[in-house]
Amino acid sequence: MKVDIQEMDEEEIIEEIQTLCEKREFAKLKNLLSEMNPADIASVLDEVSANQRLLMFRLLAKEEAAETFVELDSDNQESLIHAFSDSELKEVLDELYLDDAVDVIEEMPATVVKRILRNADSETRESINTLLKYPEDSAGSIMTPEFVDLKKDMSVEAAFKRIRRTGIDKETIYTCYVCDSSRKLIGVTTVKELLLHDYDDVISDFMETNIISLNTLDDQELATQLFDKYNFLALPVVDMEGRLVGIITVDDAIDVIQEENTEDIQKMNAMLPTEKTYLKTSVFETWKSRFPWLLLLMISATFTGSIITGFEDKLAAMTVLTAFIPMLMDTGGNSGGQASVTVIRAMSLGEVTFRDFFKVIWKEIRVGLVCGLSLAAANFIKIWLVDHLIMHNDDITLIVDLAICLTLVVEIVFAKFIGCTLPMIAKKVGFDPAVMSSPFITTVVDAVSLLVYFGIATALIPQLH
Amino acid sequence: MKVDIQEMDEEEIIEEIQTLCEKREFAKLKNLLSEMNPADIASVLDEVSANQRLLMFRLLAKEEAAETFVELDSDNQESLIHAFSDSELKEVLDELYLDDAVDVIEEMPATVVKRILRNADSETRESINTLLKYPEDSAGSIMTPEFVDLKKDMSVEAAFKRIRRTGIDKETIYTCYVCDSSRKLIGVTTVKELLLHDYDDVISDFMETNIISLNTLDDQELATQLFDKYNFLALPVVDMEGRLVGIITVDDAIDVIQEENTEDIQKMNAMLPTEKTYLKTSVFETWKSRFPWLLLLMISATFTGSIITGFEDKLAAMTVLTAFIPMLMDTGGNSGGQASVTVIRAMSLGEVTFRDFFKVIWKEIRVGLVCGLSLAAANFIKIWLVDHLIMHNDDITLIVDLAICLTLVVEIVFAKFIGCTLPMIAKKVGFDPAVMSSPFITTVVDAVSLLVYFGIATALIPQLH
Repeated sequence: MKVDIQEMDEEEIIEEIQTLCEKREFAKLKNLLSEMNPADIASVLDEVSANQRLLMFRLLAKEEAAETFVELDSDNQESLIHAFSDSELKEVLDELYLDDAVDVIEEMPATVVKRILRNADSETRESINTLLKYPEDSAGSIMTPEFVDLKKDMSVEAAFKRIRRTGIDKETIYTCYVCDSSRKLIGVTTVKELLLHDYDDVISDFMETNIISLNTLDDQELATQLFDKYNFLALPVVDMEGRLVGIITVDDAIDVIQEENTEDIQKMNAMLPTEKTYLKTSVFETWKSRFPWLLLLMISATFTGSIITGFEDKLAAMTVLTAFIPMLMDTGGNSGGQASVTVIRAMSLGEVTFRDFFKVIWKEIRVGLVCGLSLAAANFIKIWLVDHLIMHNDDITLIVDLAICLTLVVEIVFAKFIGCTLPMIAKKVGFDPAVMSSPFITTVVDAVSLLVYFGIATALIPQLH
Repeated sequence: MKVDIQEMDEEEIIEEIQTLCEKREFAKLKNLLSEMNPADIASVLDEVSANQRLLMFRLLAKEEAAETFVELDSDNQESLIHAFSDSELKEVLDELYLDDAVDVIEEMPATVVKRILRNADSETRESINTLLKYPEDSAGSIMTPEFVDLKKDMSVEAAFKRIRRTGIDKETIYTCYVCDSSRKLIGVTTVKELLLHDYDDVISDFMETNIISLNTLDDQELATQLFDKYNFLALPVVDMEGRLVGIITVDDAIDVIQEENTEDIQKMNAMLPTEKTYLKTSVFETWKSRFPWLLLLMISATFTGSIITGFEDKLAAMTVLTAFIPMLMDTGGNSGGQASVTVIRAMSLGEVTFRDFFKVIWKEIRVGLVCGLSLAAANFIKIWLVDHLIMHNDDITLIVDLAICLTLVVEIVFAKFIGCTLPMIAKKVGFDPAVMSSPFITTVVDAVSLLVYFGIATALIPQLH
């Protein structure tokens, strides 16, 4: 019976595989695994026992094994490495792309790293050590030093020969880089260009010389912005002297884009970033990512509370004012959050830079005014109609209504202003703008809103004088 | 003097270009533009006057012109189309990839669409009309019907001949699709594979037959998940009968990923999604995207206010309770927001599905308990130390402190519970889970928190009996 894996969902596949494993039908199992994509094999291997994992891993073809290995959870990579013989480890290492090897190593404890490096050949070891030295989140840390390099006076035929000879070990062969004798990057071409030219044509005649490249120390976010803008399959990374030292491939760029987006979303919502997927993060780890911000914001919010304490007497004299505190706090927080999130996102997409500082502020103030006035109008009518006329709440006079709505306008304009400026200033002074998240903005806006509210109320309402 | 555009920033380039334009130094201008990447030319063209834009556009080489055109703002595309002669329009259309043409058309008013379709040849017109019919955000709507198709009994040599002959008009040639006589997709191979095989080898001997493909009606989010997981350069899209009708390329996938992320972030923070970049969205458009949610949340928050009104007498009897309302509201909102945002993100990355419903709830309840207990402990000590002992606030008794901290635990567990369940339920019933955003969760949690607060306080504190 042929197993059609196209029609099965992951749980069925895992079950089928475990059955084959227990029945020791290894030929069938090997066959089934060979039909699967490495990313899918890895999902299965992450779910089975350590013994089964090792057994199945040994059934994989060499190249498939390496591709599966990089997709595994780092805990499972580690347990496999412990179970490997030195020669097995060497075999896997030889098949890994260097940037993947570095990704694996970065998650391993020191003893495992030592064993890995001991089993790599000296050239690989040196490359890995170089890559490990680049700062986290730099272009250098996500690049691979394995690329196709050509010479400018090569013919198309010679270029194809070189690609055929060296291409099997490269992560991408489709973008080829032309370097001069001092390894300086002088041109770029693609396999598509090569295919569309005659065998006798010389590369320097048609290579692209207006090259967009990154420096090893550039932030990886810049890399994602360039991929987004220019639709490349790979980007060259050069060192301070303009020498080509590596490339970033589009599949790695997608991983970085999704990671950075997840990180931004976590920070924007008052969480410390976690690297693992949600279901694989333990309760304690989740707590660790959420507790610090909650604590900080809780403490900040007690200042807001002390503002209320300062006006306790007046609130006691006119308790109706208390009923509007939640509405004012929520609306201020939401308004500020909208502005900060929009600006943070625009900055991380590269649409807004510090140069646009005043343009952004001017825009947010106008948006704040329009939002404030329209919400205040809606609120004014609602309070008068519902609370005063229908619910017969006589404490709500026109003056009270006015004080509330005036507060709304002021707090919304302020919220939009502070919501857009704090992230830009944070970025300017070298902090991550996403930390100026909406919860943080909310806390600031809350305090100011209450001050404005009590100030306006005291000024307008005769009973509070 | 050679202008080195590598060393100039965008504003300098725009200035240089405008000077050349005014001096009517078109040869120099043409030269400068030919060195630039289409995406950069488009940024410049978006900034200059309509006349200058047309003038510069006419200086571009045919292919470069088309690539620049797709990168322009849709308003500027429209104004260019109005200025084009029919033959100019035809020329640009002929150079556009079909999926790009569709993207352009989708933003145009009906009269412009008619003119575009009139100037396209009948085959193109038919393809465009087919693509326009796919639902928004479906795989069909972002695919291009232009791909390299091979036959299974072709030799590698024949395959390369075909790629050379037909490849120039394809968006990607690197992934090649093998179809049978009824256009059913039966295999996939890559130019890399082809290059590494002998000229006489036959494609069916080495093509990949375990194909991962999308259906035309699949959501585009599924496409982005597959690109993220499998590191493809292109994904095939098949119709209900399994016939290959188009491909999605990785550069389009990146655009979709960034669009979807921006949309998610906007929705998570109580905004309607906007398509334009931040600085290009007018004040009114920004207001339109922000006002509806602010209004809705403001109205919901008035219910929270009415809960306070219901306890007005008790609050007047014990005003110290009011001071902790902001802290309780903020902490509840933040806790719920953390849970909802985490689950929404995990769902859009495909890490969590409805199958994990109870697993997620169980996890969030435990996280809620740990967060709640640790925050309550911190808060208990802080209130006793700071407010009672240092600030000598005698209204704060041990019982009051206990009531506040108990409320914290209950509201945080509730917030985590509601924060993770609402997005999953929303997705299950066909809504966008991102709409169950943290501001919305905050409003729900606020109301419940206050009820819990007043309930616990009334039960515990003798003065309120």
